[in-house]
Amino acid sequence: MGVQDFLEGNNERMNQQLLFTAEIDKMTDVLRQTVLINKSRRENDAEHSWHIAVMAMLFSEYASEPVNIGRVVQMCVVHDLVEIEADDTFAYDVQGNIGKAEREKEAADKLFSKLPEDQGHMIRALWEEFDAMETADAKYAACMDRLQPFLHNTLTEGHTWGQGKVTRGAVEKRMAVIKDFMPEVYEWLKANLDRAVEKGWLSL
Amino acid sequence: MGVQDFLEGNNERMNQQLLFTAEIDKMTDVLRQTVLINKSRRENDAEHSWHIAVMAMLFSEYASEPVNIGRVVQMCVVHDLVEIEADDTFAYDVQGNIGKAEREKEAADKLFSKLPEDQGHMIRALWEEFDAMETADAKYAACMDRLQPFLHNTLTEGHTWGQGKVTRGAVEKRMAVIKDFMPEVYEWLKANLDRAVEKGWLSL
Repeated sequence: MGVQDFLEGNNERMNQQLLFTAEIDKMTDVLRQTVLINKSRRENDAEHSWHIAVMAMLFSEYASEPVNIGRVVQMCVVHDLVEIEADDTFAYDVQGNIGKAEREKEAADKLFSKLPEDQGHMIRALWEEFDAMETADAKYAACMDRLQPFLHNTLTEGHTWGQGKVTRGAVEKRMAVIKDFMPEVYEWLKANLDRAVEKGWLSL
Repeated sequence: MGVQDFLEGNNERMNQQLLFTAEIDKMTDVLRQTVLINKSRRENDAEHSWHIAVMAMLFSEYASEPVNIGRVVQMCVVHDLVEIEADDTFAYDVQGNIGKAEREKEAADKLFSKLPEDQGHMIRALWEEFDAMETADAKYAACMDRLQPFLHNTLTEGHTWGQGKVTRGAVEKRMAVIKDFMPEVYEWLKANLDRAVEKGWLSL
């Protein structure tokens, strides 16, 4: 049965909201390179988005500027929605990241136009803010988005780093926002980076 | 490698926060009765929690009292955490629901004590508020928690209703909070309930 068929006797606005809700269930099918901590399988975008949303409730005391947790949690749950259309791009895949911005912009046009206009704008604005990484809220959300896969890698003997032959320099570059915005967390991260190189999980 | 081993050179408080973050990855392994809309497999708690968090950003205009969306989204992402310890109980399983409150209370004691005390209290308070369904925020979150599986059932020919031989009366009872708190959404829901009975997805 098509999603269009299930809507009975309601207004157009609510239809759009319900159809969008059904549409984003596809996030469960967008696979990331990162594996779950139990290594049973790759993590999907719904799980990742949920995980960093909870993290955002726990780590704000290390942020170097005040953040609005309620806003950040909203940013976290929508930050990867465009990947329903654009698919996930592995952070350390240099080739894959060429054209990513353009691909995601088109994806956003397609996806967010399914919502009532005001709500499409609201979610798109949050996603764009996240992506620009300029506000304190966006930097904090970006830190969670980087800390979570770092933690997974640390707990799975660098599973994803090894798959992608990732170098320490590349990880440091990716983690720069944590170094800048959450220096105390970066201290922990750095000690674990050192160990990852020692153990051969990460190349120099 | 045990989760205890990965923590290098940091303070006890941050250790607890990182270990808790690792611990809750187990939500990806707590399976619900509900299937994904594409019917490929059962949904897990991480996916469900994420899904209703995004929904909470979309449906507040139908709430009969003002709600704080930033708070509700936080409530949504933590509302099922205790199931890491207590496991999911199918909403329509009468036997299974006996003793559920006690089981979940013990689970909460165990799980939230892994966090720094202030944060354990903060998350536990949100979960208890959700569970009590007395505040506007909690009622709204509960509506999302019920609307989402209803939508999944509607889009999968009543998959989970059929498995559990669920009756229309049981669903109506479960959806009472929507009837009360989001009457306009209940109109949609009711039309789809009628159809579900007509199609034989739901018994009378």
